[in-house]
Amino acid sequence: MNNRIYMDWNATTPLRPQVREVMAAALLLVGNPSSVHAEGRKARSLIEEARSAAASALGARPRDVIFTSGGTEANAMALQPGLKKGSAPPAERLVVSAIEHPSVLAGGGFGREAVEVADVTGSGTIDLAGLRKLLHGRPPALVSVMLANNETGAIQPISEVAAIVHGEGGLLHVDAIQAFGKIEVDLGGLGADLVTLSAHKIGGPQGVGALVLGEGVSGLAPLLRGGGQELSRRAGTENVAGIAGFGAAIGAAMTALPAEAARLERLRQMLEEGLRQTPGAVVLSEAAPRLPNTTLVTVPGLKAETAVIGFDLAGIAVSSGSACSSGKVQPSHVLEAMGLRPEITQGAVRLSMGWATSDADVDRCLEAWRKLAGGLLKEEGRNTA
Amino acid sequence: MNNRIYMDWNATTPLRPQVREVMAAALLLVGNPSSVHAEGRKARSLIEEARSAAASALGARPRDVIFTSGGTEANAMALQPGLKKGSAPPAERLVVSAIEHPSVLAGGGFGREAVEVADVTGSGTIDLAGLRKLLHGRPPALVSVMLANNETGAIQPISEVAAIVHGEGGLLHVDAIQAFGKIEVDLGGLGADLVTLSAHKIGGPQGVGALVLGEGVSGLAPLLRGGGQELSRRAGTENVAGIAGFGAAIGAAMTALPAEAARLERLRQMLEEGLRQTPGAVVLSEAAPRLPNTTLVTVPGLKAETAVIGFDLAGIAVSSGSACSSGKVQPSHVLEAMGLRPEITQGAVRLSMGWATSDADVDRCLEAWRKLAGGLLKEEGRNTA
Repeated sequence: MNNRIYMDWNATTPLRPQVREVMAAALLLVGNPSSVHAEGRKARSLIEEARSAAASALGARPRDVIFTSGGTEANAMALQPGLKKGSAPPAERLVVSAIEHPSVLAGGGFGREAVEVADVTGSGTIDLAGLRKLLHGRPPALVSVMLANNETGAIQPISEVAAIVHGEGGLLHVDAIQAFGKIEVDLGGLGADLVTLSAHKIGGPQGVGALVLGEGVSGLAPLLRGGGQELSRRAGTENVAGIAGFGAAIGAAMTALPAEAARLERLRQMLEEGLRQTPGAVVLSEAAPRLPNTTLVTVPGLKAETAVIGFDLAGIAVSSGSACSSGKVQPSHVLEAMGLRPEITQGAVRLSMGWATSDADVDRCLEAWRKLAGGLLKEEGRNTA
Repeated sequence: MNNRIYMDWNATTPLRPQVREVMAAALLLVGNPSSVHAEGRKARSLIEEARSAAASALGARPRDVIFTSGGTEANAMALQPGLKKGSAPPAERLVVSAIEHPSVLAGGGFGREAVEVADVTGSGTIDLAGLRKLLHGRPPALVSVMLANNETGAIQPISEVAAIVHGEGGLLHVDAIQAFGKIEVDLGGLGADLVTLSAHKIGGPQGVGALVLGEGVSGLAPLLRGGGQELSRRAGTENVAGIAGFGAAIGAAMTALPAEAARLERLRQMLEEGLRQTPGAVVLSEAAPRLPNTTLVTVPGLKAETAVIGFDLAGIAVSSGSACSSGKVQPSHVLEAMGLRPEITQGAVRLSMGWATSDADVDRCLEAWRKLAGGLLKEEGRNTA
């Protein structure tokens, strides 16, 4: 894999060197964190350090951080009937935006009939008027809206969403997986009642995530029972090395955040300027505020599968939309929800960057794009002529 | 932790060196296993290698291995109503042995009213006549019986259990977490329909497990939805490094098994001979076939918490019963189910060994035991005098 260029950071972010060190040290430990002997206590202390790092990054209390096996589990745990805030009645229905991750669209513990979908605009942000309509004068709902979309990078107006949801007596879950580490994520600032995080999107290991609760949230039912771990909210021996790595990744990402975001924003502008030189090229969600590292681009006539393979053969890893389920070749539900025509949705290629991406990577990427887009468009022209 | 002696292998087994190497290499990878580019395909191949290792160890088909975040999740996934074999009606009730792990006793997706408990004998093995009575002439049940108990090491008569369960039209789930890697675990030989494994009990990492299905088992409902991973039976980005480490641990454990089991059996005999020299010392489940590495011992009057701390101060990590839930100090449900008196249950200390345990470790352990048991017994004598 020498000389390869990795432009698929939204699918999985390479481990930060600090994280590898912390995990290597953790893997030398021998204790079960529930054991009372010195080995157990040492393992326990690594978990509690990571918990403090997560809490501090979000402005939450450590006791409100629940480590899970990833974002999917945290989302499944968050979306359960019975959650409530203070003395309000529990939410018995679920409202999700149309561009949520499949693990949110699956609805957690809510039956299909209890789930409603809020529309998004053509720029890929939630339609606030539509959301208000789904909530107003109806039983209180749990609402799930992501902070930034994994495919387009579009940042959602979460503070406005929170005001609407709370005004109607509901609770707000925010899947912050893709935004965390790239923009500020503050529980209080967002007005979120539950937030989902994932380690492998910020340079931590795959298979670790967290659900973070706002103060006053109660009624969370464990998905996994039969053990007192995570204050009896998530049974099972903890992934000590993974959680320690998550903590280290949070620390590193938080320290790097402002400078790194500015650097990536500059690279993204460079990248998008270059991409747009191909006649007809469109950057999706252009009109929305976006993550500094994500570009979803297409040219009418382009086929994303072909482009991904073409880039791969040129030594560059990119993605067609989200890469979270195995071997699926189907139009992106995100782009469909944005009302885009099939000519656009079928060709959308995602280029996402991170801490190791260099100016030279962007240059090589543009070189490959020019060849691919040119060649493919020529071919398309022949086929449809 | 220099000079410490680790005698708590049943709680967590130190990583095998081969596993650390494989995980370090896996942590250098950058791909999401669902991505189609070279990086994604490489990550995918590590998972499939581990899947083959697990399947081959159990005599199962690779497609019937589902990786999870650990034994607790695998048990929760296994214990769901609706499971069936061939064209038989699905199991709508659950029967568990009284000495199962808390994650099995929790009952998975079965309501409390649908769960019945099968008794065990004083030696800590399931009462087969009692089990037959719970099943005979009643609607078909899913039955969950562990292969070896984590506290006593007692090996359960699973083939006999399987014959009874299948004779009554039921399905058998076997939690083989504690037995795997220590004795042979063969899906067909056991007659199990579902088997649970955990990586960190065989020298793999914490936070990884597997549910393995026998042929013809269907109706398994995913716990985590919203992604096509694990053939759509377990959504969420895979813990690639952890799964690769699990695969490496399986390979190493299977290669070492016969010689290692004999070596541990010899060490255990040495250990138990020494322990028994303390007047009144009792090894629990003595009359049952037991794992080669596990000794649960007590002396009337001993308090387990005190003993664990005493051992710890002497530089030796041991456990009082199972160490799977945080900070609990309560009598072991396993020993209570065996009908043992509180004088016995309150003092039971578990010494469990593994690949790095040496003759010298056993000697130092016995030295500490003699001091502790002597001192504590003298103290108890004074207190009750």
